Amino acid sequence: MAGETIITVVGNLTADPELRYTQNGLPVANFTIASTPRNFDRQANEWKDGEALFLRASVWREFAEHVAGSLTKGSRVIATGRLKQRSYQDREGNNRTAIELEVDEIGPSLRYATAQVTRAAGGGGGGGGQSRPQVADEPWATPGSAGGAPAAAGGDAWSAPGAYGDDTPF
Amino acid sequence: MAGETIITVVGNLTADPELRYTQNGLPVANFTIASTPRNFDRQANEWKDGEALFLRASVWREFAEHVAGSLTKGSRVIATGRLKQRSYQDREGNNRTAIELEVDEIGPSLRYATAQVTRAAGGGGGGGGQSRPQVADEPWATPGSAGGAPAAAGGDAWSAPGAYGDDTPF
Amino acid sequence: MAGETIITVVGNLTADPELRYTQNGLPVANFTIASTPRNFDRQANEWKDGEALFLRASVWREFAEHVAGSLTKGSRVIATGRLKQRSYQDREGNNRTAIELEVDEIGPSLRYATAQVTRAAGGGGGGGGQSRPQVADEPWATPGSAGGAPAAAGGDAWSAPGAYGDDTPF
Amino acid sequence: MAGETIITVVGNLTADPELRYTQNGLPVANFTIASTPRNFDRQANEWKDGEALFLRASVWREFAEHVAGSLTKGSRVIATGRLKQRSYQDREGNNRTAIELEVDEIGPSLRYATAQVTRAAGGGGGGGGQSRPQVADEPWATPGSAGGAPAAAGGDAWSAPGAYGDDTPF
Repeated sequence: MAGETIITVVGNLTADPELRYTQNGLPVANFTIASTPRNFDRQANEWKDGEALFLRASVWREFAEHVAGSLTKGSRVIATGRLKQRSYQDREGNNRTAIELEVDEIGPSLRYATAQVTRAAGGGGGGGGQSRPQVADEPWATPGSAGGAPAAAGGDAWSAPGAYGDDTPF
Repeated sequence: MAGETIITVVGNLTADPELRYTQNGLPVANFTIASTPRNFDRQANEWKDGEALFLRASVWREFAEHVAGSLTKGSRVIATGRLKQRSYQDREGNNRTAIELEVDEIGPSLRYATAQVTRAAGGGGGGGGQSRPQVADEPWATPGSAGGAPAAAGGDAWSAPGAYGDDTPF
Repeated sequence: MAGETIITVVGNLTADPELRYTQNGLPVANFTIASTPRNFDRQANEWKDGEALFLRASVWREFAEHVAGSLTKGSRVIATGRLKQRSYQDREGNNRTAIELEVDEIGPSLRYATAQVTRAAGGGGGGGGQSRPQVADEPWATPGSAGGAPAAAGGDAWSAPGAYGDDTPF
Repeated sequence: MAGETIITVVGNLTADPELRYTQNGLPVANFTIASTPRNFDRQANEWKDGEALFLRASVWREFAEHVAGSLTKGSRVIATGRLKQRSYQDREGNNRTAIELEVDEIGPSLRYATAQVTRAAGGGGGGGGQSRPQVADEPWATPGSAGGAPAAAGGDAWSAPGAYGDDTPF
């Protein structure tokens, strides 16, 4: 996947997540995040609420069950994902579009709360080739371990970054 | 604050957060997030880990205590904040710079875990004019009700980290 | 301003920007960015276009005139700004909401194009305390010189779009 | 590619981009973006510069040549890409790491400048499977054209969004 519009939003759930299952038994959770900015009013010398943004969001698979089991109405969350547009017809038959968030990661914000975290039993596997990440060691904690490796690299275009010898352009 | 470089990072803590107190009694937590991308290797037809990014992060005030009380080594987190550069002298007296994350929001990712969330007792107040946000009603659910929800946020509260004397926690 | 939902979008203009002036003579440009992701289809072993995202965008003041004078239908752009929600009534009298981008920075992408850039004559000033930024010296190139560079940015300048009366450009 | 740390930065080039060619003839341009935030000082009632962030950046292939041919020292740019960490040994043999930006898109900001844009002759193709995107038509400009299509879609997990019938969870 490339060229997607990625967004991070911080806000509060307007209601408990709705957990459903598709005909194939795939869990999906839907909810709305309300994000309210604040402006500093220099005349009044105080912060004032701006207009809230309400973003409809969805999350899938075990992840959906984790969300439904952990978050409730009012939960302050931090979420990141991809902005998607969906076309539909309203009751009058007009074509309409809606913008929604397909969540890649979400969690309860610790700004005004604490959390007791439990790793899911089932492992990360399943459908999408996602494996549970291991925590990597810090390179400076194990001197030399990651040393010297030019980490340029990346997508398809980056195949031979090591090829250009000593004159690293960095 | 305007014109800052904002970033969202997803990864795992390389160690338990270190919680300290400045001379003024201000809590600050420091930790490192390791974020490991994955590439799809078309030859091998499988995902392979890329080079990890290690980002040093700090968080302040009650928020720091929430982080230290909720996250541990290996926790998968989602964090957003501002990228900061810091200059320092190494042991040889060379001028060096380091890039770090000043966290605005962080939470445990629910992708591979569940969380039991408890709102902090103390309210949001304290230093920086932060009030605990209420959840806003959806405008279409309760017409005309949009607004009324005090949003959170750091803003200027975080602008004087230099105030805490010599024991910089970095 | 704090707690806003910030987004970066890359895409192509669906039409030339529309430049208008409010009753107070404030320029505003409106346009739509179409952002099309690509998926790698492993069966077919090729990239395929995903569903496009269409994001309505607005930009203000001299900045609006720069946009209208530089970009045209089909221009590939990179834009960053704040996601805003607007409520309105459709022709049937139903309450509806639309999500739009209030642009903080935009420019033509150089991925498939070159650009000849000309600094605007008028300086940055005007409404919102914006000064034209100078380039900062690198701290390691000129030790101790960090700082001194006035940064740009919108800030409060953009906080009163409602002031321009009935002819809302949306 | 998944799980990368994506960042958008706005700032000014500290010097002209350096264009080089690898042993294989691959163009690469390197440069540094200085991004300076501003804080509103409530005591002084004015904006003040914060500490600048200096981010080393690289861009590859024809894109590199476009950058080198379009941007110069002082150019204000908007850039988005992936944050990468690179390990290296300094002159004293110490292991060090540097954080850099691998640019996905960059362009001159139109906030204080205008630009005359010229599409590159060579097409988008070449190494990385990138094809030049066409501008899509707006769905509402051609009523019904995109209508009714559930745009859920996306990554691997999204294989059968159409499968769950009428009870769309949105």
